[in-house]
Order: sequence, then structure tokens, then C-alpha cells
Amino acid sequence: MTSENDPAPEAPKSGTSGRIVISVDAMGGDQGPAAVVGGMADAADKNPEIEFILHGPETLLQSLVSARPSLSGRCTIRHADGIVTMEDKPGQVMRNGQDTSMWSAIESVRNHEATVAVSCGNTGALMALSVIRLRKLPGVNRPAIACLWPSRNAGGFNVMLDVGADIKAEAQDLLQYALMGASYARNGLGIERPRVGLLNVGTEDHKGGAELKAAQDLLMASTETGRFDYAGFVEGSDLPSTKVDVIVTDGFTGNIALKTGEGTAKLVGDFLKEALNAGLMSRLGALLAMGSLKQLRQRIDPRRVNGGVFLGLNGTVVKSHGSADATGVSAALKLAFRLAKSGYQERLAARVASAAQAGQDAAAKGEQGGNSE
Amino acid sequence: MTSENDPAPEAPKSGTSGRIVISVDAMGGDQGPAAVVGGMADAADKNPEIEFILHGPETLLQSLVSARPSLSGRCTIRHADGIVTMEDKPGQVMRNGQDTSMWSAIESVRNHEATVAVSCGNTGALMALSVIRLRKLPGVNRPAIACLWPSRNAGGFNVMLDVGADIKAEAQDLLQYALMGASYARNGLGIERPRVGLLNVGTEDHKGGAELKAAQDLLMASTETGRFDYAGFVEGSDLPSTKVDVIVTDGFTGNIALKTGEGTAKLVGDFLKEALNAGLMSRLGALLAMGSLKQLRQRIDPRRVNGGVFLGLNGTVVKSHGSADATGVSAALKLAFRLAKSGYQERLAARVASAAQAGQDAAAKGEQGGNSE
Repeated sequence: MTSENDPAPEAPKSGTSGRIVISVDAMGGDQGPAAVVGGMADAADKNPEIEFILHGPETLLQSLVSARPSLSGRCTIRHADGIVTMEDKPGQVMRNGQDTSMWSAIESVRNHEATVAVSCGNTGALMALSVIRLRKLPGVNRPAIACLWPSRNAGGFNVMLDVGADIKAEAQDLLQYALMGASYARNGLGIERPRVGLLNVGTEDHKGGAELKAAQDLLMASTETGRFDYAGFVEGSDLPSTKVDVIVTDGFTGNIALKTGEGTAKLVGDFLKEALNAGLMSRLGALLAMGSLKQLRQRIDPRRVNGGVFLGLNGTVVKSHGSADATGVSAALKLAFRLAKSGYQERLAARVASAAQAGQDAAAKGEQGGNSE
Repeated sequence: MTSENDPAPEAPKSGTSGRIVISVDAMGGDQGPAAVVGGMADAADKNPEIEFILHGPETLLQSLVSARPSLSGRCTIRHADGIVTMEDKPGQVMRNGQDTSMWSAIESVRNHEATVAVSCGNTGALMALSVIRLRKLPGVNRPAIACLWPSRNAGGFNVMLDVGADIKAEAQDLLQYALMGASYARNGLGIERPRVGLLNVGTEDHKGGAELKAAQDLLMASTETGRFDYAGFVEGSDLPSTKVDVIVTDGFTGNIALKTGEGTAKLVGDFLKEALNAGLMSRLGALLAMGSLKQLRQRIDPRRVNGGVFLGLNGTVVKSHGSADATGVSAALKLAFRLAKSGYQERLAARVASAAQAGQDAAAKGEQGGNSE
């Protein structure tokens, strides 16, 4: 997927055979390394252009990988003893995590062996390690995690960020999220000029706090530099809507919205299952409609959109769900591949650096001009 | 529904015939007064104990009401010329809204003609008017709007608050929300000792900002006075869960969560409809399962749980969805009736007044004792 007007990307890092190399943390997910290797085998089966560096306990991984013919010759194992658990605090991992598979997985991106890293582990630790080892892009204050949200748009997805990298965001951070999110939508979803909305409790201009109004002013002043359209304030009900491609919010609100959406979809799915099991007629009906219902289940299956992308760093990191099974890991790997292939990281860096400057100029101008109503 | 250990309520206000009187704002909803009167007729049909005072333009309302036999002798019309629109700012309405149907509807609760007011109008204006005309309960700093959330609990619903009365909440406000929400769950849902959770981005103690940690300390110190159990931090995915009966959060986050949940349920419903229309087999299957699917639709229909309740005021106000049709209005009236009948308002006042004092004591003690880990 290329985008005419974006700066030309450097060639993506490729392995010995010209393939895209993905660095994978085998450990730290709820389902253990077998699910991770299963997802890799699935991805390798479907995609001949993909190659892996896998990080974790060598003997264990060797036996898992050798049982998967599709990984033969396409997976290097990098030994790491330590495991970051879901309970570990980010600070501990930053100080003492050098021997962990997570650290090692990020290191492969840092030293340019791989284009992108994927982990199912502890989100806070993964973000902390990514920030200290890969460093923030010039012009970025707070990195963000972006997720894909099922939508009624033609591409099937909207982008929402931040969904939990940080619990706070100032107006300037929200502007950077807009720039990063627009760039992600352009390169990851192929939307030439994404429409960016700010999540709020109402669409009217007077809704929300001072920070959101300041962010609105910054976004309106940055649409040309950032090559997006500003769609105004949007509400929670607009997350799947066609009025917007990218939804920007702080990490606290975004995380609550993401999990509320997932929880609600699961609740409705469970209710549907109960309804179709109630009585002979319903069960017969469900049998007849089985093909369509299966399609529906796939359409709302959170595993299919598995993979939060860390934005704003010198390198791409994809966070898979902690509970991801092989299907979920495979989806995260597919997303990682698509971003690596598009040269997304290099485009993003150039875009944010130039737009951050423009945003600062706009902010300075706004301050001179006083508050607009 | 009575609750043994709560202070005995005063007798609910009742009309000439011993019925519960509900004050209804006929205007300001998206569907106009015909939908409101339709909902009233439906409620009156089902419930012989209900009686109305209806506020709005007399001639118009007279013709709508006289067309509904079930309202005969059970609906007094109170003339009001002015209408609060969705665009009106709360401040304007507070200053110049004396002639509006919304103002008049609240006035009937203020002067004890009715036990509860119901309006489909502008939420911000309704809250502002309710606060200045009914005043806050002793001990309450920020009133809140509570909504019912479909859940897997036996009663079918959890309570969430605040969903948009205010965009901010300090730790002390979150404690008051917990007390008010627990009282609502006890009197409205019949849960003797509700479990209260604080909405956060994770369940671990170290997640979230300083305010949430302070609120957690306050809640833990107030479980006995407030007669609830503290269920800890909960996530967006826990809103429909069985680990909790009441979810406490600030009005910004609560509003986003509420609308995200509604939007997601609608999206899944639309996808289901599409799936069941795809091909002959699916359509036939849907036909056979029609009864169960209809039940499912009702179970996730936001109109069925229509009605946010304003808590923390000297009087109960129920805010119906702006877009509510007759079915939605009828659901809001049913909720209003249930709360009025239970003597909820009088119990709440006593509970909050005593617990607010206890909360302040706990807070003072916490400050003396320093921060707990």
C-alpha cells in the first residue's frame, strides 16, 4: 500500500531471502508459547513473504518450532531465559528485564534485524521497554496505542487511539495522536485523507473540558500539514460510524471505551447464543442460518482485530491480546506484516517530525491570537 | 419493594385517588408531544396506580390527551408556552426558562404535587434546572445521573453512574456516587447489599490516577456506613459482569462508556440483521427462530432501559432519551413509578446525609493516617 504524497520510505528491513522479518516474543501470553508458535505457523502458511526471529527458552521453542513444517528455514530462535509476567511492574522490568524474551524481542527491532516486534505480554512493561529501548520519535511527547474498531466504513475498520499507553493527554498530545492516527490510517488502511474526530460527551462545540477545546483548535489549524480532515467532536456511539476514520482520545477514556465495546459485543453474542438454543424451532433456525451466523461471529470476533500498535517510537511494536490463541496471534502477525511492508514506520517518522513543528507553530499563533470562542 | 434496615420512608406523594403522581414534560423530545402522550397512555393502561400532571401548550396537549381513553380522569394539564430546545444552553434556561414546560414539570416536584418528574428534553438544561429548583441533598457536592446497564446478574441490570451530569469528579464525589448508587440498587433493584466497583483501566491496585486511588481508600472505609461491599477496580469489560452491581465513574468516562455500549449493541444488531438476510437458508432460519430473536432484540433494546435517574437532589428526576418514542417514554415512566413507589427519594436522603458525614470522617482519618500502599 503506497501513498503518493508521503515521503518515500526506506526499504523495509528484509531477511536473507528478501522476506519481511518479524521479531516475536514467545512468552508472557496467557496461552503460552505453543499458541504463539501456532499463530506463526498459520501466518507463515498463508504468507510466503514472512520470516521470524523468535525469543524465549531455546530448548522449549526448538521443539515447538520443529513440529511446524511451515516454519522450516523461516524462523531463527534467540535464547532468553527470563519471562515478563502480567504481574510485573513496568519499572522492575525496565531495571532488571535484560534477560527476558520481551526485552530481546524489542532489541531485534532496535538493532535493525527486524522491522517490527510482536508480543502478547504485559502491556505496561512492553510500552515501558519500547520507550526506553527504541526511544520516542522526534516531536513526540507521549507515545500511544492505536487499535482497530469494527465500523460501517467501506474498509470495515476505524482507528482509535490512545487506548492505554498513558492515562493522561494534554491538548498537544491529542494533536500528536491525530497526526499519528491519520498516518496509520493512510498507510495501514489505505485512506488517502483520513477524517479525524475528537471523542467527547457531545458533538456541540461547548461540550467537554478546556483541554478538548484547546485540542480542537490545534487540530483545526493542522489539517493541511497533517493531511487529514477534522470531523469535529464525536461521541461513543460514533466509534463505528462512517463520519470518521480516526478517533482521538486520552488513554484512560480510550481504554474504557475499547473494553466496554468488547464486553458489550461479547454480551450480545452470548445473549444471541442463548436465544438460538431456546427451543426446537430456534435450534432448527440456527442450523439453517449457520453459515451466516458463523460469518457474523467472525465479523465481531475481537481476535480478528487483534493487535494494538504502539505509535510514536523509532520502530513498530504490535501488542497482541494477552489471552490471544493461535488465531489471535496470527491476526497480530498479519497486521505487523502489513505495517512493515507499507514502510509505515519511516513515513510516520517524517510526517510527525514535520507536523509537530507545524503544530507548535499553530499553537504559538493560537496563543498570540487569544482564545477563540 | 422495601428494604428492612433502611429508615422508613415518608408516604409517597399521591393524587386524589391514592395514585402515584408523575410530573411529565411534554415538550423538548425529538419525537414531539404525541410520543410522550402515547407513552403515558401505554403506562396508564398497564398500571392503574399511576396519575399524571402534563406540562406544555394547553390546547395542543388537550387534543392529544382526549384522544386517549386510558388517560381520562388521570391527567391534569398545566399550561406552559415555552419549550427548551436541544440547542439551548443550560445557563440561558436557568435565567430565562420560567415559562417553559421543563421548568413547570420540575416545579410540580418542588411543590410536592408530584413525586417524580420525567422529561425527554435537553439533559444539561434539565440537570441545571433540577439543581437550582430542587437543590442538592445535604452532603452532596455533585449530583449524578445513573443508568441501568444490561448485565448477566439475576436482576438483569447493573447500575452505572455518573453518566454525564458533570464531566469531572473528585475522590469525595466518587464516594457520594457510590453511596447514591448503592441506595438506588437497593431500592430500585432490590439488592440488599450491593457490590460497588470503581471503573479503571485495570483491576490491579497500581492502575489509574491518584484520584482513583484516593476514592478506593474512601470506599473501603465506608462500606459499613453505606451498607455496600467494595468490589475493587473494574474494567470496561466488567460493566455487564456478575462481579458487581454498581459501577462508579466520573461523568465524562461514564458518558463515553454508555454511548459506546449502546453504539456497539446497535452495530452487532445491524450485522446480525444483515447476516440473517443473506441468502434463502438464513432467511428461513431467521423465520424459524423469530420468537427467540424478537426476545433478544427486546433484551438489548436501549429503549427498554430508557431513563437516566438524577441522584443527589431533593426530588427524583428521570431523564428519558431525547429520541424516545412511545415505547421509550413508557419505560421511563415505569422506572419513575417504581422509584416513587419504593419511597426511594426519602430513603436516599437519609442514607446520604448520614453516610456523607461518615465519609468525611473516614477521609479525615485517612489524612491523619497518611497514604496507605
